[in-house]
Amino acid sequence: MHKGDPPVSRPAFMGGRGAAIRILGVDPGLGTTGFGLVECENRGSLLYGESGVLRPRGTSVPPRLQQIFRGLVTLIETRKPQYMAVERPFFGKNVKSAMLLGQARGAALLAAAETGLAVQEFSPLEVKQAVVGYGRATKEQIQAMVGSLLGIRQSLTADAADALAVALCLAHCLPLQRTLRDALWSDQRGNRRRSARWTEKDLGDRS
Amino acid sequence: MHKGDPPVSRPAFMGGRGAAIRILGVDPGLGTTGFGLVECENRGSLLYGESGVLRPRGTSVPPRLQQIFRGLVTLIETRKPQYMAVERPFFGKNVKSAMLLGQARGAALLAAAETGLAVQEFSPLEVKQAVVGYGRATKEQIQAMVGSLLGIRQSLTADAADALAVALCLAHCLPLQRTLRDALWSDQRGNRRRSARWTEKDLGDRS
Repeated sequence: MHKGDPPVSRPAFMGGRGAAIRILGVDPGLGTTGFGLVECENRGSLLYGESGVLRPRGTSVPPRLQQIFRGLVTLIETRKPQYMAVERPFFGKNVKSAMLLGQARGAALLAAAETGLAVQEFSPLEVKQAVVGYGRATKEQIQAMVGSLLGIRQSLTADAADALAVALCLAHCLPLQRTLRDALWSDQRGNRRRSARWTEKDLGDRS
Repeated sequence: MHKGDPPVSRPAFMGGRGAAIRILGVDPGLGTTGFGLVECENRGSLLYGESGVLRPRGTSVPPRLQQIFRGLVTLIETRKPQYMAVERPFFGKNVKSAMLLGQARGAALLAAAETGLAVQEFSPLEVKQAVVGYGRATKEQIQAMVGSLLGIRQSLTADAADALAVALCLAHCLPLQRTLRDALWSDQRGNRRRSARWTEKDLGDRS
């Protein structure tokens, strides 16, 4: 999933038609790490699972990272998502906060790697466009739209809403990814359906 | 070790007089993570253990972080150091590289937290002053001085030398830290030796 090449073994979530895909969205931070679980059915309907925040205690960094790492590993092992979605950070912040955020992101990405979970990253623009349809949406607009899309009545914290938003962004991309992978998979199995991965030779054959 | 309060239980390395303290210095990076092991005896002599670099493979971040994390955990579990020493990064670099470095640092600090290893961080200035005696020392001066202090004949890579340098920096600080902790320990045990942790009341009693 992390490499540029298409997967040779068919991913588990592509097994049965109608199988739901569970996505864990994470908004990492040393102070507060938001998380949100979204289930996405083949027909396109989205279901809200749960959301919340991890607030690591203590003053020094290593135990805080450990609490983020262990909290996410526990979530992944108990809720069994197939994907982790993380927002690719906006690089306009200052260097010191980028370093701190990088450490928290490291803990989150390690939790995914250690549990064998595929990670997909999205830019803030992609997340906003997927959820609100507008790349310069405010935090409040995201919170409102996430609540509306998932039918959540209770108020969401900003961190949990951000985590759910990035999970929704991945959910929106999945149908296209699935179509492409199905095509690649068929091609690898030697079926008649043509692959989307045309090589020069393929194109030559067609002309 | 990470909290501001002094440890109540006596750390293992303070057990026997003459016991050597093993320090793992780490210079984290997503491309190359340097490591170096130094043993420091009570009499003040320093011994070179080993050094090298971890070069994680692959293009995406999560598996690279995992290789750094697992490599360091294996080193800690097999070489059994009592401390990890890490350089506190210099914040003059750009935001994007700070974020990437932060992720690698996160993996290194998590390796320490997951194995129960105490971490101490030092600024680049502290490391250079401890090793070369001059805060603006060049990379080459550090490499030469690390080799000379530890009696290493083979040439060191810059990353391994940096890792050994920060381990040496901690080794230089330990005698003072040990004296302070011994004093605190005696105080906690109710011995006659006075603690270095004077409260206002203590100072009042003395006047």
